[in-house]
Amino acid sequence: MITLYTDSSPNGFKITIALEELGLAYTLRHVKIAEGENRRPDFLHLNPHGRIPVLVDDSSGITLFESAAILLYLADKTGRLLPSVPTMRWEAIQWLMFNAASVGPIIGQRVHFELFAAARNPEAIAHYRRLVNEAFATLDRRLAAHPYLAGEAYSIADIAQFGWTHIARIIGFDFSVHKHMSAWHERVAARPAVQRGIALPAPATEA
Amino acid sequence: MITLYTDSSPNGFKITIALEELGLAYTLRHVKIAEGENRRPDFLHLNPHGRIPVLVDDSSGITLFESAAILLYLADKTGRLLPSVPTMRWEAIQWLMFNAASVGPIIGQRVHFELFAAARNPEAIAHYRRLVNEAFATLDRRLAAHPYLAGEAYSIADIAQFGWTHIARIIGFDFSVHKHMSAWHERVAARPAVQRGIALPAPATEA
Repeated sequence: MITLYTDSSPNGFKITIALEELGLAYTLRHVKIAEGENRRPDFLHLNPHGRIPVLVDDSSGITLFESAAILLYLADKTGRLLPSVPTMRWEAIQWLMFNAASVGPIIGQRVHFELFAAARNPEAIAHYRRLVNEAFATLDRRLAAHPYLAGEAYSIADIAQFGWTHIARIIGFDFSVHKHMSAWHERVAARPAVQRGIALPAPATEA
Repeated sequence: MITLYTDSSPNGFKITIALEELGLAYTLRHVKIAEGENRRPDFLHLNPHGRIPVLVDDSSGITLFESAAILLYLADKTGRLLPSVPTMRWEAIQWLMFNAASVGPIIGQRVHFELFAAARNPEAIAHYRRLVNEAFATLDRRLAAHPYLAGEAYSIADIAQFGWTHIARIIGFDFSVHKHMSAWHERVAARPAVQRGIALPAPATEA
């Protein structure tokens, strides 16, 4: 049995979407970050860094944190959502890593300074708006030439990226200027498994 | 033939170290970021986001950017630097992803505000010092219990992390309080391939 520890966040939705796409049976454990449940000893035993998502797969004895590692694991376990042809496979992994290292953390920092920082910091806000726009422009160029990030096939790279564009829409980080990325977002959002995934453990809100 | 486009930076050293550890033949192309060579059209053709490293492998027809993707590719190509036993393999991938998403980008932001930002921004500096220390504390706890990030075996997870601790030492981001991570750093630094890797294409400087 698979158990997913998660909350309603970009990194959490990546995994609920992937599990729904793959049709795997799993148990959901809602770790309420707003209530500090990610700092409880039993959760820190699963991820010493205190972040969701964490996936536990009893069938393999594997416990994993970091959403990109979990996506790679689920693709490896099922042989799905990652192309098998090497050139396409490595394109997908490259764009998954681009999301993990060069997009997600940058949007995360923008979220901190625009939504959560105690004092207004116009320089930091301008800095992260510029970096987010630069990352979105790179994604937009890629999606101008291909329907999905890995090329022709929908993959874990799209699921990872969608976790963040979904939240960007909710909190008003407008990306409509990036027309190809916006069209791709609608294409991914239309998938029934994506619609199920973004409601688990609960839909995200602006707060 | 493998061609590596790189500069003297944390993400660049990850790949020169890996190539030296693996003993693979490769051609080095020095992309001088300080001179804007990463913004030239021929380089943007290799990585539209304008970042090093980029690896081109003629034998497979694969061109890759994002250092974590390149490390996974080199491990897959050679069957080395990544354990084959699944539980250990996924530990290694998890800590590689932790570096890619939760350590490197955060140190990178601290570097920006402490070394490069036009105006002094004490709040942002304090924010990133706190986050870097939190990430280092997580790594320190892991390395208190195991000699390497994946457990008993040196892997691409250590190489990725070392790229950043090497630069942290050079620019004075002191981590001596994290004793297990400091001991691990010395253990990795003592490897001949690591010493060769951090001198390619040229040693890093404080600037």
